[in-house]
Amino acid sequence: MQIDKLTLKDVATTNRQYLETIFALGDGHMGVRDSVPFTGNQQATLPVMLINGYYATNPITYGESAYGYAKNHQTIISLTSPRYLDFATEKTSSEIPGDWDMTVDDAVLDFDTGVLTEKFQIVTSDHHHFELVVKSMIALDNSHQLFLNYELTSLDYTGTLRFTRPIIHDVTATTADADDPRVAQRQSGLTNQFIPADRQQQIEWQTLVASTHQQITQRDWLTSFPTGFEVYGDHAGFHGSGTIEVQTTLSWSFTRQISEINQALPDTITSWTNDIVDRNRQILTNFWQQSQVQISDQKLQAGIQYNLFQLFQSAGRNGLTNIAAKGITGPGYEGHYFWDTEMYMLPFFIYTQPQIAKQLLHYRFSILPQARKRARSLGVTRGALYAWRTINGEEASAYFPAGTAQYHINADIAHTVKLYFDVTNDQNFLREQGAAVVLETARFWLQFGSWQQRDGRSQFCLYKVTGPDEYTALVDNNYYTNRMAKENMAFAAWLLENHYIDGDADEQAQFTKASTNMYLPYDQEQQVTAQDDNSPKMPVWPFATTAATQYPLLLHYHPLMIYRHRVNKQADTLLAEMLFPEDQSLEQLRRDYEYYEPITTHDSSLSRSIFSILASRLDDRDKAFSYYMDTSLMDLVDLQGNAKDGLHEANLGGSWLGLTYGFAGMYVADGKLHITNHLPTQITHLSYRLRFRGRVMEVQLQQGCTKVQIITGRPLTMVVDGQQREIALESVANSKSS
Amino acid sequence: MQIDKLTLKDVATTNRQYLETIFALGDGHMGVRDSVPFTGNQQATLPVMLINGYYATNPITYGESAYGYAKNHQTIISLTSPRYLDFATEKTSSEIPGDWDMTVDDAVLDFDTGVLTEKFQIVTSDHHHFELVVKSMIALDNSHQLFLNYELTSLDYTGTLRFTRPIIHDVTATTADADDPRVAQRQSGLTNQFIPADRQQQIEWQTLVASTHQQITQRDWLTSFPTGFEVYGDHAGFHGSGTIEVQTTLSWSFTRQISEINQALPDTITSWTNDIVDRNRQILTNFWQQSQVQISDQKLQAGIQYNLFQLFQSAGRNGLTNIAAKGITGPGYEGHYFWDTEMYMLPFFIYTQPQIAKQLLHYRFSILPQARKRARSLGVTRGALYAWRTINGEEASAYFPAGTAQYHINADIAHTVKLYFDVTNDQNFLREQGAAVVLETARFWLQFGSWQQRDGRSQFCLYKVTGPDEYTALVDNNYYTNRMAKENMAFAAWLLENHYIDGDADEQAQFTKASTNMYLPYDQEQQVTAQDDNSPKMPVWPFATTAATQYPLLLHYHPLMIYRHRVNKQADTLLAEMLFPEDQSLEQLRRDYEYYEPITTHDSSLSRSIFSILASRLDDRDKAFSYYMDTSLMDLVDLQGNAKDGLHEANLGGSWLGLTYGFAGMYVADGKLHITNHLPTQITHLSYRLRFRGRVMEVQLQQGCTKVQIITGRPLTMVVDGQQREIALESVANSKSS
Repeated sequence: MQIDKLTLKDVATTNRQYLETIFALGDGHMGVRDSVPFTGNQQATLPVMLINGYYATNPITYGESAYGYAKNHQTIISLTSPRYLDFATEKTSSEIPGDWDMTVDDAVLDFDTGVLTEKFQIVTSDHHHFELVVKSMIALDNSHQLFLNYELTSLDYTGTLRFTRPIIHDVTATTADADDPRVAQRQSGLTNQFIPADRQQQIEWQTLVASTHQQITQRDWLTSFPTGFEVYGDHAGFHGSGTIEVQTTLSWSFTRQISEINQALPDTITSWTNDIVDRNRQILTNFWQQSQVQISDQKLQAGIQYNLFQLFQSAGRNGLTNIAAKGITGPGYEGHYFWDTEMYMLPFFIYTQPQIAKQLLHYRFSILPQARKRARSLGVTRGALYAWRTINGEEASAYFPAGTAQYHINADIAHTVKLYFDVTNDQNFLREQGAAVVLETARFWLQFGSWQQRDGRSQFCLYKVTGPDEYTALVDNNYYTNRMAKENMAFAAWLLENHYIDGDADEQAQFTKASTNMYLPYDQEQQVTAQDDNSPKMPVWPFATTAATQYPLLLHYHPLMIYRHRVNKQADTLLAEMLFPEDQSLEQLRRDYEYYEPITTHDSSLSRSIFSILASRLDDRDKAFSYYMDTSLMDLVDLQGNAKDGLHEANLGGSWLGLTYGFAGMYVADGKLHITNHLPTQITHLSYRLRFRGRVMEVQLQQGCTKVQIITGRPLTMVVDGQQREIALESVANSKSS
Repeated sequence: MQIDKLTLKDVATTNRQYLETIFALGDGHMGVRDSVPFTGNQQATLPVMLINGYYATNPITYGESAYGYAKNHQTIISLTSPRYLDFATEKTSSEIPGDWDMTVDDAVLDFDTGVLTEKFQIVTSDHHHFELVVKSMIALDNSHQLFLNYELTSLDYTGTLRFTRPIIHDVTATTADADDPRVAQRQSGLTNQFIPADRQQQIEWQTLVASTHQQITQRDWLTSFPTGFEVYGDHAGFHGSGTIEVQTTLSWSFTRQISEINQALPDTITSWTNDIVDRNRQILTNFWQQSQVQISDQKLQAGIQYNLFQLFQSAGRNGLTNIAAKGITGPGYEGHYFWDTEMYMLPFFIYTQPQIAKQLLHYRFSILPQARKRARSLGVTRGALYAWRTINGEEASAYFPAGTAQYHINADIAHTVKLYFDVTNDQNFLREQGAAVVLETARFWLQFGSWQQRDGRSQFCLYKVTGPDEYTALVDNNYYTNRMAKENMAFAAWLLENHYIDGDADEQAQFTKASTNMYLPYDQEQQVTAQDDNSPKMPVWPFATTAATQYPLLLHYHPLMIYRHRVNKQADTLLAEMLFPEDQSLEQLRRDYEYYEPITTHDSSLSRSIFSILASRLDDRDKAFSYYMDTSLMDLVDLQGNAKDGLHEANLGGSWLGLTYGFAGMYVADGKLHITNHLPTQITHLSYRLRFRGRVMEVQLQQGCTKVQIITGRPLTMVVDGQQREIALESVANSKSS
């Protein structure tokens, strides 16, 4: 029941900017939004090409500055879309048909080849009719080539057509809503050099700030065209209908603090061939085999495949780039990398595409020097603090209460190093890269925290931090942060004990002591796990008098109004409980869930997937299904209303978590894999593939029946529906669940 | 033992920028720094003239903006100094003697006339020697005239001198340390019109933003000069030595939201005459009679007189201006008005110059519309919230955690309305202006706060506020804020009950209930009054490893490092205890003092005066004296190191509080005046004048002896050294204190 494509019928609207996001193409590095193939009056659209990690830097201006503030913005650069091919009839005066009537008939994104095919109906300003079919494809073999095939058919026009292929030289400022922090606000100054040649143009883009040494070379080549056609010359045209093909290739070099990225142009110029389609098909077949998910609900099947396809298109693979909050599908959040990668997206890669997971984690290793430096700026003399939002490793958050104060990113990264190791058993990575990350982040906590008397004994406390929930800031002992730091330090002690990295016994003992005695706030009165020291005492947000139009709250209320109320943007304490299922009883989890659910707005796209997973764990299967529907289809139904700015990449990952961590109750504890069947009644069948310590496995859930199969690899002892099982090759752990 | 002048021997250094501040002249509206009388290479100085309330506005740029943030900077405008009179010998090519060697021989500021006399020794670039005596005086009769008398004596030069009087037309940006939030950072764009005329030039300054309708007219007139001398023409000069006199007069019009300020130019042009000196002498004699302080220590006598003289020079008197954090002695803190006026400066005016106090409080009444609007931006639908820092009434703080979150300013203003009423019994003011201020600020608290179970009963709590101590931000139940809001609401209830303002009985009951049940945090374990809910649990700042050069902390540590430690910039909880002596026992106060003193850096100039007062109350007289020395002489010894940017006006007021609230233990409770003798052993005698409900009184303290005398007015029942006394006209309450 694999779905092989997404069509226009599967999406929320035909608003162009929305479609640009939804049908965006990428290879993890080069991202091209699906803008219309004409220039003109398109201010409402974002006709851009993005290169993962290619950014401009500008000094941050503060209303009131202070010591240690982040110094520079890093803003992913919006390059001109390479999709433009303007044409004009004899009667129309300009090649830029901004006022032409144009409708999209169909759009088909093929998950097996990565080919996007669109059909447009065009009425020119002199009332002629044309049909235009555009096929687009990015080669997925890491050559960074975009292929475009334009097939123009005249329906009622005979005469000469003039064409031009405008790669616009001015890269102007993105128009943006100045008060919405989720939209990228600063465009770079760029210099470029334009080298026209026969049927070819080459553009070299360079960022203005020399110190970043970033350069892009874009080669744009006409590979196939009707006789007599000359695009880069004098716009000579042809009669009636015809086909034009273009290849745009990118190469780049970025210098990072510790290394260089050099991606050369391919030697040959290729036109659209079946060979390239076949190469893509092979790569994607591999991908779908490793990451296969089958689910009985057709909408959800389409949703999860779309989501995984887009995750695959967004993930950097060269070890020095990561996955931005909106991938390379839009310039939102300035193209920054956040904790989203580790906590929402990496599990999918770790369990099914470990080679990509390793590259993404290598990025964190590569920016350790910047993280060490950042810790010093915060007054901590040992260890490292990762930037809350960054491309080059330096902090780029201009609002520290919901930026740098989210120290938890340190432990999030360490947690994911541990998950990667638990699932892959990649000893080399842990020894050579992971251990240093874990040790340095743990060292930060050790100095950052302090010992205080709590509940009659000395416990380790963390003051003035911000947890994942950005509707609460600068609190004491955020449960999530404390719980994650506890794991971070425990893992560091384990690494020292097992000689994955050098360190002294005293430090190891300190890690163990702080981890063991980490304070975890609990509200005795209400018997709930407390988000922080004071949260249970605060007044609840006035939900009754808040109109639906006032959400998301962050766009309608002063932060001070939000901070002084008990209201959550997203799962916070519950996220920690999701990650550590063995920390609390189901009764406790239920009380916590019932306490936090009514005060959570889900104004963040990182929320619903977690609520779905925990509803599964609590066996509230209808609720789990309902939250999962919103997760899986978030961008396809435009639930948050802002998919036009780019996909919610964390939620793409969250939709895989909802199936595997939620419906299949999957987790690893003490190195042991757990699977529990929580399939909602609306779903009759769910199966998915994963890799675990060298094995390829498949989990199959049906109502009342759980099967786990090893496809390749050695036998495994694991826990299925609460019972320990020994699973051998080609045997099936088959459990009748209630 | 009155001191009648300040001389160069009384001050810390001869650094020019420092002297510019210390010898600044003002009449509450027009402020002129004591810059050298030549233009030239003076980048290290601030040769400016400031007009109280005359500001430029520019949009605030945020690194990351959000809903409800303050929109515009308001920056007091630095006008060109009118003190310049450049001259040149025949051999020197330019009138601008930037490279001339110039030393200041003496400077004398006369407290009885406001006349500043300075003597400079000059060596020109062609090695000639001159002596220049400059006398400066601002008429204190509200006519805003500056008189300058230049007496130039040639010591070894005969020949023609060329003169020019440069009023520079470009008002350029103030150079400022970008990371120091205490320094004004933005200069205005100004337009000006320059109208030269015979022996006169007239300049009209207008701010660029038309909506503020602010205009200054500056008339600059040569009133006396040697024959043949023509300054505004072709720089014709005269031989040898001579005297030149200049009068600079200002007029202005500002539009504020509810009213206009119009200050016309005087009809006549006057030269420096003894009449004007005599008029000033009369005004200042009056001032010193009303505000007389005599203290046996000569240094402290000079200190307090200097401080009061400068307070008098800085206070706006037209009801629509206030006292800026640096008065009109420098552009620091952008010329903004803070809570400093109410809590540190107004008591002096209330007790000794009530007509000025009333004008200063009228300013707050005049900006009530802006405060109402600000409350709406914060999500509070009734009442008013005063801007943390402002000139025109709108919030100008670009960092809300240490700006808008200092809600306590609301209660500070209400407190001072009450103090003014308690001391003056001005019924009209309370009915017509004060009651509305108190009611609207109280209404804000009522909706802002919330009821929570604390210590087994429902109490009124205030979440996510910042108290006076800016090294702690966004905390729950800041003791100071809660205690002040408690008084604010109790006073509002009293005003309603006594029909000073209309309101309903239900609201009155709510004020009483919230006030009575206000939660005041207390740490049972350590038996200390807690700064806020969590403060006692936080780790103490690492004082042992903090070098002396690392203070003030705000310039050397990230706010997050500061916020997560128990460290105070200034008195916070202790300030509340200072204001309400009857709240706690002396034993409790002593514990609190001993708890907070070691963690207070006094990085704020608002701190030491409070520590002195409380040391007096605790009868730790040596400590009280020591803190008082630092308070009284703060700018004269340049204790904070930044007097060059302007005087610490709050501390000027604090030095009066140290004497009266401290050494004389003065306070009002339940309408009754209290005096207690805490005179330090270093001081043999202290006496001061005050006004209390229509009476003129004098307090005289000696070691072991307290006298309170009514100079004019009806008998008074008050408390002297703990005993209730009835004091009649010309009788003396004479107490032998221990």
